[in-house]
Amino acid sequence: MAKSIPAGTRDVLPDEMRELRAIEAALAEMFEREGYGEVQTPVIEYEENPPPGAGRAGASRYRFYDETGAALALRSDMTEPIARLVANRFADHEGPLRLRYSGRVYRPLRLQGAEMRELHQVGIELIGAEAPAGTIEVIRLLVAALDAIGLQRAVVGLGDADLFGQLLDELRVEGAAKERILSCLAAHDFVAIEAEAGDLAGIDEEARRTIVTLSNLRGGSEVLARAKELGGAAVERAASRLEETYTGLEELGIADRVQLDFGLLRDLGYYTGAILEVYDPAYGDVLGGGGRYDGLLGAFGRPLPAAGFSLYLDRLHIAQAAEQERAS
Amino acid sequence: MAKSIPAGTRDVLPDEMRELRAIEAALAEMFEREGYGEVQTPVIEYEENPPPGAGRAGASRYRFYDETGAALALRSDMTEPIARLVANRFADHEGPLRLRYSGRVYRPLRLQGAEMRELHQVGIELIGAEAPAGTIEVIRLLVAALDAIGLQRAVVGLGDADLFGQLLDELRVEGAAKERILSCLAAHDFVAIEAEAGDLAGIDEEARRTIVTLSNLRGGSEVLARAKELGGAAVERAASRLEETYTGLEELGIADRVQLDFGLLRDLGYYTGAILEVYDPAYGDVLGGGGRYDGLLGAFGRPLPAAGFSLYLDRLHIAQAAEQERAS
Repeated sequence: MAKSIPAGTRDVLPDEMRELRAIEAALAEMFEREGYGEVQTPVIEYEENPPPGAGRAGASRYRFYDETGAALALRSDMTEPIARLVANRFADHEGPLRLRYSGRVYRPLRLQGAEMRELHQVGIELIGAEAPAGTIEVIRLLVAALDAIGLQRAVVGLGDADLFGQLLDELRVEGAAKERILSCLAAHDFVAIEAEAGDLAGIDEEARRTIVTLSNLRGGSEVLARAKELGGAAVERAASRLEETYTGLEELGIADRVQLDFGLLRDLGYYTGAILEVYDPAYGDVLGGGGRYDGLLGAFGRPLPAAGFSLYLDRLHIAQAAEQERAS
Repeated sequence: MAKSIPAGTRDVLPDEMRELRAIEAALAEMFEREGYGEVQTPVIEYEENPPPGAGRAGASRYRFYDETGAALALRSDMTEPIARLVANRFADHEGPLRLRYSGRVYRPLRLQGAEMRELHQVGIELIGAEAPAGTIEVIRLLVAALDAIGLQRAVVGLGDADLFGQLLDELRVEGAAKERILSCLAAHDFVAIEAEAGDLAGIDEEARRTIVTLSNLRGGSEVLARAKELGGAAVERAASRLEETYTGLEELGIADRVQLDFGLLRDLGYYTGAILEVYDPAYGDVLGGGGRYDGLLGAFGRPLPAAGFSLYLDRLHIAQAAEQERAS
């Protein structure tokens, strides 16, 4: 008798497939209208990609040797292969380039829980557009994507990828202690951050309070002033960048869909500046995320500023069903 | 600097992607109208699937161990996982079941040539419908699929998977000699078949002629009589089965799209009875194929007759472009 399917993978039957395709189609139509052309990259990649400079060279992936002895890996992310594609295939394009994708990625399980290791991601990359204008366009598209599939209650968290690293440097929190705090932030474990901050040797009570306060500081434009009161160059820089972006969102009338979040950190190593994370109140997990990755294209030989986001198709579907349930 | 992409894989840019999506959509719409619901299965499978009884347990695939120590493999075919899905998820369905799919499969290179090892297949499976009615429906859908994407000149080859195995048994051609002839047929290498037949020890000139003649025998209904003249139980059985199917196709008015081919053999081990292969005169390689696999579902624990076909999306696209070029 045949075995079933590996944990973290699933079969999709026709009724559900029809709904997933409808979500894909609604997003594709909107992205296409906004000038984002679809690209596709191989699922099997050279293990040496992404190169060390890309920031995630050690990311956990499924690896194997092919019939020629080459070390290959299964794609675990869409942004890196698209950065490679742009460097290879759009070397002379003057930009900005607007690209979208819909495809599967593969990630080994970190916890033996209910995680998926085969994930379908839908998203966009805006390449060659600087902050804040590029970031504002990406957030506008993200809000439009959520609207297109009926997730009007979903919230986009907007943070700054560099903030905590710079802040901890400023406070001279280094090595393992720094890594532990960054890990707690990426895991959204605010209780652990408070404990870690309490344990920090060699920093004063005010610095401790800054770490804890900042990690919990989220809301509308009012949090910008509260952050600045905490002082320090890192906070000042992040708050100014966030303010520029937020002002642009206010002008577009979509700032109410965005929550500034000074404690936001994503575990993909390539983000610089703005980072994004999407939640829906009817669904317990993150629907997707993104941000700026101004250093990634350079690692593939074509330095260009860039930003984008990706959404997990299956989670969008569950959130959509939960919102429809709630509305009925 | 980053490496490019592995041989046998490719990036697809927006202009081409739009055309590939249009082909996918045209096929999906027609299949859906005919009652074929889409399913999706994981790309990463247990290495033990398909089970030994499925006929292709030793097929060449990319294999790796996951973080739990389980042996996994990349999907190299869509029919086997759908047979598993039907056994697992439609155990009580009275049938017939009409399913379709569109997804990628992965195959190690056999020759270091221009082969692809990441291939996108689009196709259908009709499960629970016996020959000849089930076979006739599958061929009708295949012709409709070719029409839907402008490949009206494409030809469906229709053969019998059991014919040559049974014929060689009847002629007492066994072991390595039998395997060599079957391999030549699967590779469409008719020159080699003639040489192999000439080398066969212990069979008479008439038997030799039967092998060579049959391997080259293709055409309309007239070839049925010519085959029967060659005599023998295997040829008689295959000719009768092909005749039943062909008569059904004549009644539907689509027999002119089908070429009977007594020399047809596919290298997927699970086919029984009717086998299909699709060619377009403007394109040099097979566009896809299929056939009956009445034994496969049983290997997954749910014995049911079945038939289906799959088409290579990229090749459909190239053939479509070649036909458009020709027409203009």
